[in-house]
Amino acid sequence: MTLTPNRLTNWDSFIAELNGIETIQDPNQVAKLSQDYYTFSPVLVPQLTGKVGDLVVRPANEAEVVQVAAVCAKYRVPVTIRGAGTGNYGQCVPLEGGVILDMTRLQGIPWVKPGVVRVEAGVKLAQLDKKTREIGWEIRMAPSTYRTATIGGFIAGGSGGIGSITYGQLRDRGNLLAVRVVTLEEEPRVLELRGDDVQKVNHAYGTNGIITELEIPLGPAYPWVEAIAAFPDFMSSAHFGQALGDADGLIKKLISLHADPIPTYFTALRPYIPEGSHIALLIVAEGSLEGVQALVKEYGGTITYTKSAQDAGKGFNLAEFTWNHTTLHARNVDPNLTYLQSLFPPEKDLATLEHMYHHFGDEVMMHVEFLRMGGRAVPAALQVIRFTTEERLNEIIRYHEERGIFIPNPHTYILEDGGRKAIDPVQLAFKQEVDPYGLLNPGKMRAWLEREV
Amino acid sequence: MTLTPNRLTNWDSFIAELNGIETIQDPNQVAKLSQDYYTFSPVLVPQLTGKVGDLVVRPANEAEVVQVAAVCAKYRVPVTIRGAGTGNYGQCVPLEGGVILDMTRLQGIPWVKPGVVRVEAGVKLAQLDKKTREIGWEIRMAPSTYRTATIGGFIAGGSGGIGSITYGQLRDRGNLLAVRVVTLEEEPRVLELRGDDVQKVNHAYGTNGIITELEIPLGPAYPWVEAIAAFPDFMSSAHFGQALGDADGLIKKLISLHADPIPTYFTALRPYIPEGSHIALLIVAEGSLEGVQALVKEYGGTITYTKSAQDAGKGFNLAEFTWNHTTLHARNVDPNLTYLQSLFPPEKDLATLEHMYHHFGDEVMMHVEFLRMGGRAVPAALQVIRFTTEERLNEIIRYHEERGIFIPNPHTYILEDGGRKAIDPVQLAFKQEVDPYGLLNPGKMRAWLEREV
Repeated sequence: MTLTPNRLTNWDSFIAELNGIETIQDPNQVAKLSQDYYTFSPVLVPQLTGKVGDLVVRPANEAEVVQVAAVCAKYRVPVTIRGAGTGNYGQCVPLEGGVILDMTRLQGIPWVKPGVVRVEAGVKLAQLDKKTREIGWEIRMAPSTYRTATIGGFIAGGSGGIGSITYGQLRDRGNLLAVRVVTLEEEPRVLELRGDDVQKVNHAYGTNGIITELEIPLGPAYPWVEAIAAFPDFMSSAHFGQALGDADGLIKKLISLHADPIPTYFTALRPYIPEGSHIALLIVAEGSLEGVQALVKEYGGTITYTKSAQDAGKGFNLAEFTWNHTTLHARNVDPNLTYLQSLFPPEKDLATLEHMYHHFGDEVMMHVEFLRMGGRAVPAALQVIRFTTEERLNEIIRYHEERGIFIPNPHTYILEDGGRKAIDPVQLAFKQEVDPYGLLNPGKMRAWLEREV
Repeated sequence: MTLTPNRLTNWDSFIAELNGIETIQDPNQVAKLSQDYYTFSPVLVPQLTGKVGDLVVRPANEAEVVQVAAVCAKYRVPVTIRGAGTGNYGQCVPLEGGVILDMTRLQGIPWVKPGVVRVEAGVKLAQLDKKTREIGWEIRMAPSTYRTATIGGFIAGGSGGIGSITYGQLRDRGNLLAVRVVTLEEEPRVLELRGDDVQKVNHAYGTNGIITELEIPLGPAYPWVEAIAAFPDFMSSAHFGQALGDADGLIKKLISLHADPIPTYFTALRPYIPEGSHIALLIVAEGSLEGVQALVKEYGGTITYTKSAQDAGKGFNLAEFTWNHTTLHARNVDPNLTYLQSLFPPEKDLATLEHMYHHFGDEVMMHVEFLRMGGRAVPAALQVIRFTTEERLNEIIRYHEERGIFIPNPHTYILEDGGRKAIDPVQLAFKQEVDPYGLLNPGKMRAWLEREV
């Protein structure tokens, strides 16, 4: 059994065995499809720049995926799976060349029913919603890259997003119902994982199986209203955000806080942001708007902008200034900016958040996304950081961790180092079962690299 | 200004001025329509037995309500408003005779749209759902008397119920959007209250205005599955309930726990309840069922019964064994049983609940309904109690209160004594404005009885 992938120098016979499945060999195209948004991280840039695949393969359906998997296993070539490549940690950057498996042609939606949809991995999130909204439902949560990201990529490389203030994160039981996976063997198997078994491949960066189809729970497609609330001081906006998160009778999809000066990076929103103010970007159900307005007032804020549900398609989309789009807008203005990911402990008085808001000043600008965790609304942060050195960045991380803040570090491409910091024996065992040659996204799963062989 | 209502001995001219609005004078009928389910309380029975109105008036629409209000104001007769009379605290028992204003003919549903419905006060909850489900929505929460209770009565006299595990209670911001109220004056006004102003009449027992129409938020009509989970010990069921309440990715409508021997009172459910077991009655979204099954297993329970969404209309309805229907079934077996209402503090280890479960033994049988309060799933209880004396009942209440458990006492018909134990200045001020003669449900609002005049 070979445990180090091959590096083919001549791909002709490999391609011949694909029997006409679409491939891309143009170096520019291949290089482009070897990228994601790891450029957000000045730490990852030197590590990942220049890492490219040898060949992009674009199967059109599961049968073609099976065939690609068989050929890759036969030739022992590395396989890096990608959707739209909107991740930020180099999840789909190939460390050892090989095949880039572009899943975006798997565009089927076999069925949708109230509360659940069955969908192929390559369907874009916005496209999926368009279909499910026909019967009044929508996906529960989405990243800010909602218009381009695929459902398969979101599950394999994402963790939550807009909607997480109601439904928690992707890893929470019930947020992923089933996954269909093709194994990387000479005779690939197609496995259906359901119930808790989905955790075997959930957020595994495509290291242990090729996801072809998923069953995703849906939430109700409320008529959503977008709103900007401006506050004279950041902590008022924070207490407002917590109160809205805790308001069981108010339906919300997004509570996104931006301490001054972050709002100055949002060029399109400037007319609605009073100078020097701290803002909350909100998406709430139309029927909850009056309640939200009362709550904003209670915390000393002012609603400066609303977009009705009827106007949903018009103008800008507030969600595209939140989650990691905040970082994107900030970096468009100042490319030296980077970001952090932090999970604050649940605290009624938000004392830890307040301390951190004041401690670093403008070096760490506070951007909070509220989400539900273990049944409670908690502040998570994607702080915008004025980067100087990696040492200083690590110092900032350490300062947070010492105060009980959990940091899923976005400045690493190693699965376990970025997330829960622990080897996942279930995901490792599954990799051993479905990827015996270690070909899937090699170099990303620490558990595999450090296993006893 | 007269501040004590009149007791008319002859109603002929009163009725004449109603201009043909439907009335009922038959004493049996009037007596029946002067009742609610206060008989659950052995304390209330001696206080309320024999309290009857003089005349039932049944307006067909808001215009007729206005006319009735004008005539009642002119004659200074007390007015006790009722829907289906499914309350348990004598909310609609007339203490000083007079008119029973039966609102059940106000049957209009002016409009329904995604997430919100506009409805007249007399519409039954089940009837309302039938209409809103045509477009995929349903009311957010309902009492166990869902099939007969009216929406007006629920808002005026209820507090929450099935659905509260997701949306909290009726008093939470966002759970009641607007109320239309007729004042009790010679020239009645019709007022529309919106936003926080709805709290002026929310849960006021009809003491300060006649609710004719309401705007109610809706939740998504998931395909709901009913399930019974049996556990070998009560605390396992309790920890399971808390975990399900905290599971952000699992959609639920009901988490109702019944310590042995309460399940023995549920005759229809006996085939599904292993001898001596403690049960959880559950209503969860179809898409969440696999996740719930995994959670039941994790806590050592067994699912003994499920009813699919497709079979919703068939057989028994699990909801009708929960909330105050639990008390009803228990009292059908043993009329000496009564109940309590308790709100436990949020605790990860459920220590207070565990203490109470053990402390009183079979004198206080544990029945827990999980609900959301201030953003957290907390255990509320409607314990089934073996009643001996009022003194002993008060001793039990005191024991709970001393341990930080809030008791909204169900053994009083006084608005403030049963609920938040505090005079509500907003509701009092509104009564002074809309019911200057103090005719609406006299004797129920302590704030009015004790006001300075």
